[in-house]
Amino acid sequence: MSEGRVVGNIRRADADVIAGLAAAGVATVHEAGSAALLAPDIRPIQQGARVAGSAVTVACPPGDNLMLHAAVEAVEPGDILVVTTTSPSHHGMFGELLAVSVVARGCRGLVIDAGVRDVAELRSMGFPVWTRVIHAQGTTKTGVGSVNVAVCCGGAEVNPGDVVVADDDGVAIVAREQAEAVLEASRRRLDKEEETKARLSSGELGLDMYGFRRRLHDLGVRWVDAGEE
Amino acid sequence: MSEGRVVGNIRRADADVIAGLAAAGVATVHEAGSAALLAPDIRPIQQGARVAGSAVTVACPPGDNLMLHAAVEAVEPGDILVVTTTSPSHHGMFGELLAVSVVARGCRGLVIDAGVRDVAELRSMGFPVWTRVIHAQGTTKTGVGSVNVAVCCGGAEVNPGDVVVADDDGVAIVAREQAEAVLEASRRRLDKEEETKARLSSGELGLDMYGFRRRLHDLGVRWVDAGEE
Amino acid sequence: MSEGRVVGNIRRADADVIAGLAAAGVATVHEAGSAALLAPDIRPIQQGARVAGSAVTVACPPGDNLMLHAAVEAVEPGDILVVTTTSPSHHGMFGELLAVSVVARGCRGLVIDAGVRDVAELRSMGFPVWTRVIHAQGTTKTGVGSVNVAVCCGGAEVNPGDVVVADDDGVAIVAREQAEAVLEASRRRLDKEEETKARLSSGELGLDMYGFRRRLHDLGVRWVDAGEE
Amino acid sequence: MSEGRVVGNIRRADADVIAGLAAAGVATVHEAGSAALLAPDIRPIQQGARVAGSAVTVACPPGDNLMLHAAVEAVEPGDILVVTTTSPSHHGMFGELLAVSVVARGCRGLVIDAGVRDVAELRSMGFPVWTRVIHAQGTTKTGVGSVNVAVCCGGAEVNPGDVVVADDDGVAIVAREQAEAVLEASRRRLDKEEETKARLSSGELGLDMYGFRRRLHDLGVRWVDAGEE
Amino acid sequence: MSEGRVVGNIRRADADVIAGLAAAGVATVHEAGSAALLAPDIRPIQQGARVAGSAVTVACPPGDNLMLHAAVEAVEPGDILVVTTTSPSHHGMFGELLAVSVVARGCRGLVIDAGVRDVAELRSMGFPVWTRVIHAQGTTKTGVGSVNVAVCCGGAEVNPGDVVVADDDGVAIVAREQAEAVLEASRRRLDKEEETKARLSSGELGLDMYGFRRRLHDLGVRWVDAGEE
Amino acid sequence: MSEGRVVGNIRRADADVIAGLAAAGVATVHEAGSAALLAPDIRPIQQGARVAGSAVTVACPPGDNLMLHAAVEAVEPGDILVVTTTSPSHHGMFGELLAVSVVARGCRGLVIDAGVRDVAELRSMGFPVWTRVIHAQGTTKTGVGSVNVAVCCGGAEVNPGDVVVADDDGVAIVAREQAEAVLEASRRRLDKEEETKARLSSGELGLDMYGFRRRLHDLGVRWVDAGEE
Repeated sequence: MSEGRVVGNIRRADADVIAGLAAAGVATVHEAGSAALLAPDIRPIQQGARVAGSAVTVACPPGDNLMLHAAVEAVEPGDILVVTTTSPSHHGMFGELLAVSVVARGCRGLVIDAGVRDVAELRSMGFPVWTRVIHAQGTTKTGVGSVNVAVCCGGAEVNPGDVVVADDDGVAIVAREQAEAVLEASRRRLDKEEETKARLSSGELGLDMYGFRRRLHDLGVRWVDAGEE
Repeated sequence: MSEGRVVGNIRRADADVIAGLAAAGVATVHEAGSAALLAPDIRPIQQGARVAGSAVTVACPPGDNLMLHAAVEAVEPGDILVVTTTSPSHHGMFGELLAVSVVARGCRGLVIDAGVRDVAELRSMGFPVWTRVIHAQGTTKTGVGSVNVAVCCGGAEVNPGDVVVADDDGVAIVAREQAEAVLEASRRRLDKEEETKARLSSGELGLDMYGFRRRLHDLGVRWVDAGEE
Repeated sequence: MSEGRVVGNIRRADADVIAGLAAAGVATVHEAGSAALLAPDIRPIQQGARVAGSAVTVACPPGDNLMLHAAVEAVEPGDILVVTTTSPSHHGMFGELLAVSVVARGCRGLVIDAGVRDVAELRSMGFPVWTRVIHAQGTTKTGVGSVNVAVCCGGAEVNPGDVVVADDDGVAIVAREQAEAVLEASRRRLDKEEETKARLSSGELGLDMYGFRRRLHDLGVRWVDAGEE
Repeated sequence: MSEGRVVGNIRRADADVIAGLAAAGVATVHEAGSAALLAPDIRPIQQGARVAGSAVTVACPPGDNLMLHAAVEAVEPGDILVVTTTSPSHHGMFGELLAVSVVARGCRGLVIDAGVRDVAELRSMGFPVWTRVIHAQGTTKTGVGSVNVAVCCGGAEVNPGDVVVADDDGVAIVAREQAEAVLEASRRRLDKEEETKARLSSGELGLDMYGFRRRLHDLGVRWVDAGEE
Repeated sequence: MSEGRVVGNIRRADADVIAGLAAAGVATVHEAGSAALLAPDIRPIQQGARVAGSAVTVACPPGDNLMLHAAVEAVEPGDILVVTTTSPSHHGMFGELLAVSVVARGCRGLVIDAGVRDVAELRSMGFPVWTRVIHAQGTTKTGVGSVNVAVCCGGAEVNPGDVVVADDDGVAIVAREQAEAVLEASRRRLDKEEETKARLSSGELGLDMYGFRRRLHDLGVRWVDAGEE
Repeated sequence: MSEGRVVGNIRRADADVIAGLAAAGVATVHEAGSAALLAPDIRPIQQGARVAGSAVTVACPPGDNLMLHAAVEAVEPGDILVVTTTSPSHHGMFGELLAVSVVARGCRGLVIDAGVRDVAELRSMGFPVWTRVIHAQGTTKTGVGSVNVAVCCGGAEVNPGDVVVADDDGVAIVAREQAEAVLEASRRRLDKEEETKARLSSGELGLDMYGFRRRLHDLGVRWVDAGEE
C-alpha cells in the first residue's frame, strides 16, 4: 500500500457480453450468476440509468483524488470507473471536470465508495454515477494510491476488468472470467420470467405455480380465519 | 413465533372511508387522529404517490420471502401489503414478479421494513412502494412466518385491516376501528386549513392569527435589534 | 439558552453579490472561498434548485416550532430560513402552512437540521428545502428559542445575515463580510473552468494539464502493464 | 393511541420458569424457542448482567416520561420495565430517581428504545439497563401514553407479562404462554452443549461431529492447497 | 475560515465554580441551567470519569491535526480541549503523544468531534476522552485552522472559556457568564434530589409526590384491569 | 463466488515478526507501514487485548456460518480468523462453541464483519473478538462460501496469511510480504517516540520540536489576544 501503481493493458470482457449484461440488469445478473453486490448505500444520483462496463479500479487516500487523474488515462471506451478510498471519507472526490475528461475517453459511468459533487451538472450531462454520498467538500491532490489493482468497494472485491453492472437497484460485479456464463444464465432466467410474469398477471398464484403451498403445509403453517385463532 | 399462520377473512374498513383518508394524506391523518407514523427511514421509491388501503400484514424470517407468496392469496382489491422481518435484513424481498402478482389481485401498494429490488420496473408499473432499502440481494424461500397477524413495521404496530395511508411524507397507520372518526377529524382540519392558507398567503402572520405573539411574550422572549443585544 | 431573543434589523449582504453567488453554486463557492459546508445528510427534497439568500437563523427546542412563527416576521424578501434544534429531533417542524406564510414574505428557501413534512405540497409550490429528514411527526408550540442568533446547523456555524448558497450538492455558508470577495474568487474560478472544460473535452489529460504526471512520478508511482507486476 | 390506559393485574409467568430462563441466557433462549430478539442497537450499559423478568410495558410520547411514573405503580417484584416512544427520540427518559423508585418496588431492570441518563449512578446501584442511547437531555411530563399494552420495542412486539431475558448479548422476548416450553427446550439445549463443548475442547471438529464435511462436499466445496487454485 | 487564528488570553470561569460544576455532573448541570448537550454519539472512552474545565477550542481541517499542536500552547491548568473538524472526519486526530503534551500543561481532558487513537494508553494514563470514534487512521500536519474561536462540536456551539462538564452521560457546555448561576441552581437541585431519593426509596410514588396522578386523570388516562379493556 | 473453496497450506509470516507486530500495536504498525485499517465500526468486545496473528479468511453467505466450521480445520496455532459475509448481515455468526473449537487449535482471536453472540462467555474465556455488532440471532448452516481466499472485511482487503494486528484502537492488516519491513519501521518509530514522549512530558512543545510554529506562520496563522480580534 505504501507504493503506488498504475496498471495498464488490463484484460476486459467481450463487448457483446458486456452489452448483454447491461440489458439484463443488476437483479437478474445477481440472481443468475451469484454476482457480488455492492452495499446498498452506494446509490445512483439519477433514475433510469442501466449500464455495464469494464472496471477501471482506483484506490485513493481519503480526501485526495490525485490518482483519479492517473485513472483517466487508463480509461478506454466502455469502461466504468470504480473508486474507493483507503479509509472512509465523505469528500467530493469527483465532479464535472473529471466527468468531462472521462466522457471524452468513452467512460460509461462512475461507481464510488466516497463522495461526488456537481451532481446537477453530472445529471444534465447524462453521466451516470453511483455514490455513497453527495458532498461538495474539496480534495487535495498529493496522495499516492493505485489504479487497476484489486479494490474493496462497497464491501465487495472488484478486480480490474471485471464487468460492472449498475442500475436503479445498485451495482453488481461479475468476474471477467465468468461474464459469458453469467450472461447465458441471465438470458435463460429472463426467458423464463416472461412466461412467469404472464401467468402471474393473469391471476395464477405463485403458491401453486412454484409448489409453495405444499411447502408451507409441510413447514406447519396453518390457514385460519380471523377470530378462529 | 415458531409456528406460522395465514389468517383469512380479516375485517377491513369501509372503502369510502379509506378513499377519504387517501385524499387527506399522511400529515393530515396523523395530526387529526394521532395516527401512528412509521419511522422516517421507510421511504417511497417514487414521487407523488398518495394511497390508502387495508393492511395485509406479513412477518418473514430475515432474507426469506416464502410467506410473501402466501400473502398474495390473502390480498383483496384495495389492500396494501405491510411486510416486516423478524430480525433486521437488507435483502431485496420483493420485486417485479411479486408486484405483477399482487397487482393482478388489486393490491394498491407495498410498505416494507426490509429491501426491494427491480425498482425501475416497479416505478414504470406505477406500483407504489415504501421501503427501508433498495437492494438486489436474493432471498431463500424456506422460512416460516405469518400473514395477517399483528406486526412491528418501522417501529409501529400494524394490525391486519388497519388503514395504511402513504405518500411522500411517509406512512401512517390508522386503527380500523378509528378510521371513520379520523376521517371526520381530517376533513374538519382540511376545511380549516384552506382558510388559514388564504390568510397566510395574503401576508397575515401566524404570530397574530394563533395568538403566539402573546405566548412568546409570556415565555419571556424579547425582541431586540441587532447590535443592541 | 434559557431566555429567548428575536433579533431584528440584521445586516445582509448586497443583493447583487447574493445573486452572483447563487449563479456560481455550492461547489464553486466552497472551493473559491473556503465556504463552510453543511453536513451531507442535509439533503434537498427537490432536484435542480440553486438559490442563495441571507440567513434568518432559528434555534428551536426539539419537536417544538413556536419560534418558527416568530421567525416568519423577521423574513425579508431574499432571505433563507436556517433552522436547527437544540437537541437532535426528527419531528416535521415545517410544512405547507409555514411555507405559504414565508413565501408571502419573499423567502427563497429553507435549510433545516431537523424534519419537514407536506413535501409533495412544498415541491409543487416550488419552495426549495434542504432537510435532514422527511417526517410527518407533529410538533408542540410551547418552547422558547431564538431568532437571528448564531446557530450550529448541520455541523457548521451560521450567523444571521450570512449568505446561504444551496443546490443539489448541498448547502454552503458564506460569511456576510466575505461575500463579495468570495464572489470575485468564484467568478475567476468559473472563467478558468470554462477553458479547462474545453481542453478536457477535447481529450487533453489533467495529468498533463495540471502537471500531475510529474508529481506522481516524484511520489514513486510506477506505471506497469497487467501481468508484469 | 389518542387515549391512554394503565392496565393492571396483568398475568405473569411462573417465577421458577423466569429464573430458569435467566440462567439460560439470551442466546440459548432465542435458539431454543425462537424467541424474538430486540434490535442489536439496544445495548447494555453494564457488563455481566443476566436477568429475566415479566414485562411491564410503557409507551410514551417522544421526549416525555410522564407515563413512566404511572408505570412505577404497576411494577411488582421481578418485573422488568420495557419502554418505547411513539416516535424516535434520543431524550434521557430514565435516570437515577426513577431507578430508585422502581428498585424500591422490586424491579429487576429496564429495556428502553430511547435514552437514559445518570448511567454512572445506575451502574453503581447495580440496576441493569439496556438502551438505545445514553443522553442527558431532559423530558417533559405532560404527554399521554399507556402502560401494559402491546408495544413495539427495538423492532419486536412485546406484550405485558411476556418474559424479558437480557444479558450481554442483548434482549430476548419470550411469550408468556410459551415460557415453560421454551425453558424446557433451553435446558435440553444446554445439556447437549456441555457435551459438545467438551468434545470440541478436546480437538474434535464440528466438521465431523455435525456431519458438515459431507454437506460441504455435496454443496461442491473443494479443498485445495494454496498455489494449486 | 480561509485564515487561521490562535487566540490567547481568553477569559475563564472561576476555578471554584468549575469544581462545583464537575461535582454536579452533566445531567444535573443540564437540567439546572439549560446547558447545551453535545450529541450523544460523542462518547467517553472510559467509565467513571467526571470532570469540568475551561474550553480551549480547536477547529481543524478534516484529517489534519496541525492546529492541535498550536492549541497545546494555549492550554492552562484546568482546561479541556474541545476539537472539531470543518468537515466530518474519522481520522485519529489525537493520541498518546498529544496527551502526554497536554497533560504536562495541566489539561483535564479532551472532547473531540472526530477520532482518537492509542486509547489503551490514554486509559492507562487516566486522561479522560469523549470522542465520536476510535480509529488509528493517521493525519497530515499541513492544514490551517483556528484555536479559541467559536466552534460547532457535536451539534452545539462552544465558545472559548465556556465550562465543559463531562461524565458517563456525555458532555454539557455551560456559557462562561452563566457558570456561577448554573452552579447555584445545580446545588439547589441536588439538595432537593437527596430528599426525593429518600422518599422514593422508601416506596413513596412519584405519581403522588409530584401530583402526576391527577395530571394523568385530567389528561384522560384510564386505569383498567387486564381483560376489562 | 458460485463455487466454494477451502484453501490449505497457506503461507504465513515468521512467528517472531508477528510477535513483534503485536507488541507494536495497531496505531504504530499503521503509521510505520501504511498498514490498511479496518473500518472503525469493527470494535473490540473487550478492553486491553493486543494480539497479532496470521489471517485465516472466511467468506460466508449472510446469516449462514457453515463455512466457519470448515475454517476451524484450517486454523493453526497463532492464527486469527477474519470473517466476512457476501452481503451485510447482523446475525450472530460466532459464539461460545466455535470459540472453544478454535481455541483448541491455538487460534488467537476473531475479526468479523458481521455479528457475534455469547459475548459474556467469550470475555470470560479471554478469547479476543473484534466485531461489527453483538446479536444473538441464529444462523443457518447450509450455504457455500470459501476459506482462505482474498476477502473484503471492514472495507479493507485481507489475504490469507496477512498479519492481523488488533487492539483497542481497532484492526490493522499487514501484507505478509511486508511484515518484516513494517516491523523494523515500527521499532524505529517506537524508539523515537520514547524520546519524544520524555521531551513532551517535561513541557517542551511540539510546536517547537517539530518546527510547526514556523509552518503555521508560513501558512498565515496569526496569534492574537482575545478582544484584539
